[in-house]
Amino acid sequence: MSRLVNGVPSTLPRTFKSFFNRARSGSNDPETVENVQGWIKSVRLMKNMAFVDLQDGTTPHTLKLVVQRAGVGSESSSEDHLRKLKTGQSVTVNSAVWMPTPTRQQPFELQAAEDAVRIVGDVPASYPLQKKSHSLSFLRTQPTLKHRSHYLGALLRFRSHVEVALTQFFELHDCTKVAPPILTSGDCEGAGELFRVESRARWGQMAQYFGQETYLTVSTQLHLEVLAAALGRCWTLSPCFRAEESDTNRHLAEFWMLETELSFIDNVYDLTVFAETMLKYVAQRCIDRQQDLLPALVPIGSNAEDVKVVVERWEALLARGQWPRLTYSEAITLLQGQHVSQPFSFEPVWGQDLQTEHEKWLAAHLDSPVFITDYPRSCKAFYMKQNTDGRTVACFDLLVPQMGELIGGSVREDNYETLLQEMSRRNMNHEDLAWYTDLRRNGSAPHGGFGLGLERFVAWLFGAHNIRDAIPFSRSAGGSIEL
Amino acid sequence: MSRLVNGVPSTLPRTFKSFFNRARSGSNDPETVENVQGWIKSVRLMKNMAFVDLQDGTTPHTLKLVVQRAGVGSESSSEDHLRKLKTGQSVTVNSAVWMPTPTRQQPFELQAAEDAVRIVGDVPASYPLQKKSHSLSFLRTQPTLKHRSHYLGALLRFRSHVEVALTQFFELHDCTKVAPPILTSGDCEGAGELFRVESRARWGQMAQYFGQETYLTVSTQLHLEVLAAALGRCWTLSPCFRAEESDTNRHLAEFWMLETELSFIDNVYDLTVFAETMLKYVAQRCIDRQQDLLPALVPIGSNAEDVKVVVERWEALLARGQWPRLTYSEAITLLQGQHVSQPFSFEPVWGQDLQTEHEKWLAAHLDSPVFITDYPRSCKAFYMKQNTDGRTVACFDLLVPQMGELIGGSVREDNYETLLQEMSRRNMNHEDLAWYTDLRRNGSAPHGGFGLGLERFVAWLFGAHNIRDAIPFSRSAGGSIEL
Repeated sequence: MSRLVNGVPSTLPRTFKSFFNRARSGSNDPETVENVQGWIKSVRLMKNMAFVDLQDGTTPHTLKLVVQRAGVGSESSSEDHLRKLKTGQSVTVNSAVWMPTPTRQQPFELQAAEDAVRIVGDVPASYPLQKKSHSLSFLRTQPTLKHRSHYLGALLRFRSHVEVALTQFFELHDCTKVAPPILTSGDCEGAGELFRVESRARWGQMAQYFGQETYLTVSTQLHLEVLAAALGRCWTLSPCFRAEESDTNRHLAEFWMLETELSFIDNVYDLTVFAETMLKYVAQRCIDRQQDLLPALVPIGSNAEDVKVVVERWEALLARGQWPRLTYSEAITLLQGQHVSQPFSFEPVWGQDLQTEHEKWLAAHLDSPVFITDYPRSCKAFYMKQNTDGRTVACFDLLVPQMGELIGGSVREDNYETLLQEMSRRNMNHEDLAWYTDLRRNGSAPHGGFGLGLERFVAWLFGAHNIRDAIPFSRSAGGSIEL
Repeated sequence: MSRLVNGVPSTLPRTFKSFFNRARSGSNDPETVENVQGWIKSVRLMKNMAFVDLQDGTTPHTLKLVVQRAGVGSESSSEDHLRKLKTGQSVTVNSAVWMPTPTRQQPFELQAAEDAVRIVGDVPASYPLQKKSHSLSFLRTQPTLKHRSHYLGALLRFRSHVEVALTQFFELHDCTKVAPPILTSGDCEGAGELFRVESRARWGQMAQYFGQETYLTVSTQLHLEVLAAALGRCWTLSPCFRAEESDTNRHLAEFWMLETELSFIDNVYDLTVFAETMLKYVAQRCIDRQQDLLPALVPIGSNAEDVKVVVERWEALLARGQWPRLTYSEAITLLQGQHVSQPFSFEPVWGQDLQTEHEKWLAAHLDSPVFITDYPRSCKAFYMKQNTDGRTVACFDLLVPQMGELIGGSVREDNYETLLQEMSRRNMNHEDLAWYTDLRRNGSAPHGGFGLGLERFVAWLFGAHNIRDAIPFSRSAGGSIEL
């Protein structure tokens, strides 16, 4: 009744991905395949047969199904069954024969008799997705159907692959995956506008569900520091929320953030090595599995990058040795030199944060991801470890071509007095954060970590230029949440 | 500069987990080990040496460190360095010698000179965690330190292990990991009290950030159905929120839920096979890695289960063949029989939902996880597929001994008319859910899925009786969110 799938029993139908894995592994002999289920991507009717491309969502490849028309006068033919096949329908093929097709690009096809093919779920004449490739702007108007498109389906599978690769990476490094809280009492980082939360039953009343104002987290870092002091190394992939009013392709109100915190790390260099190793690990996993990950086509008229460009990006991440590292001060000098010959919109000035135009120029100029380290203290958060120069902190941003900042991280200030002085300098309430600062008095250890916005990372790796496509249902200022 | 760790370069210090892996793999020869970093679990001072147990959070095992006291008159000794070592401090050992200890339970120890050991982070005299095992009720009063305890640290590592095993399982089954939205517009399921969300800037104003009332999700299922129709099979591990006013050991206001949705599945039996396979897969991974997962001791005076009992539970999950399956009607008959001889608090009556006492009795009676299928339609959600008997739906709950319900799932109603009739019967607004019901008219396919509360699952597998210990910072009615 059940088969073994990768050594595990299953009663589910075989996936198209498993079909292509079989062919790739060299097992391409004819066999009978039962219970093939998928959706019609396209149909081409011939006199005696129909060529049907099927997809089942597990792979970018479509399954070629050749349906033989039943003889004239047979029951099926009289209904003209094949003419009813349409893009978007779900179908079941009771039984088909796997045939190798060594002369064609696709190594096999399935052949079935007309009466073996049954339409399971029909589509109306108005079904908006058709055989042709749709533009991304059109697909975004179809929030319940767009994921069935070749490109956006591939993007979601790609995101999943990146998550799995990250899980493997942290497992290899003995990092514990943790679930820091989403509901928190404050904007401890000052990292953007907050969403406030109250139980519907108590909305507008004085009584509060948690006895105080409650917000959605903007970063899990402070809680991760608690856990890193217990588990040594931890990481999380958690939703974070920022109620920004700006509406750009680079921001989401709800996004997923990878954050990691590592004990016994006392310098930025080691942190950058860890981040670089992580990204290269993911890039290698993408290269290894590119056949399962990449769409054959990108949408017409969009600025989505071609598959070839995407693979070259992955390979370039690995091709050179260690990525360049510049201090913020060195970066400012470079930028100021450029500004003389070709002015930026914003003049690069020491002590001010880098603008996106500066970040993109630096990465493009070096033609590589580049770590910028040791920013001025005033540009960064209160918890970053102060360098001995008295004006910079032991932090880094990773900038990548096209995108700008991808990762931000730092060593954390582990000196209790220094941390409190910095909080005072910023007029921060000490009492609210006593639980956090007290960590420095209770078996503190040097530690640091970083955060990576998952959608941004996925969009950049995949060559998609709108991070809203890298999450299935995007939430942003002015957007809808009806779905 | 960097070593290879599992084939990947790293500049981080070696973890204690890697030390024990080395010893277990048979490489137990003496060697010099540099830069050992951890926290002191206990210290025993002798005349000429100190025995120090260290932990670094990556394994339940403590590293035995033997520190030789420096000779009389040496600089270190004059400071009486060893007397300063205390439980909770973080320390660095610059250099130590790995020595096999074949006659003892632990296969090796590290030996270091007094001046090789440096206290990095001190603790105050009031540091609450000591060598002895603390009670869980005491530990819960120390929300920033409790995770450093032997038992709760092991529980967090265990949770991480379960997450990784689940990730592997779904990867083996070609299921795509997805991120359905946390911010939603409604309580589509009627699955409990909602938390409402608004941007802080617009709190109390008429203008709404998303143009309508916004809530935190209680279940991602409806969105997963959209994605399953595109990707074939998908799963998620997402935070869910229920603003219940009840305060029990079995409920959290913020919890993580595993949900999966599978296309081309049309009967409950196949769903239960998939769920059973998943749990058995995780149980096997726990057995395989028990040395890295289990605490040696459980807290005194708690009702945490002994390690031996926990391993027996894992083995029992695998030992018998397929777990029993009963229809709801069969379960009611069994319960009514029992009720005659030993009455429950609530009489079992066909048509009413099972009480926790009933669920626990059934699992205990069968001494196994048990699937209860085909509940009355009125007990379950509107989207479940109606059976041909006209009064039950194609659903299941998995009940487990001690805990009661662990998983709930169903085949989904894929007939458009039937679904709309059921919504009308329940006085549900059709327009709000048109995006969902329309899926049935656009290439619909039979599909189904289930949900598993992660904390409940982790607590049950680990033998912990309070699910609040299975999440690092718990959120529940009447609880605090200050941290």
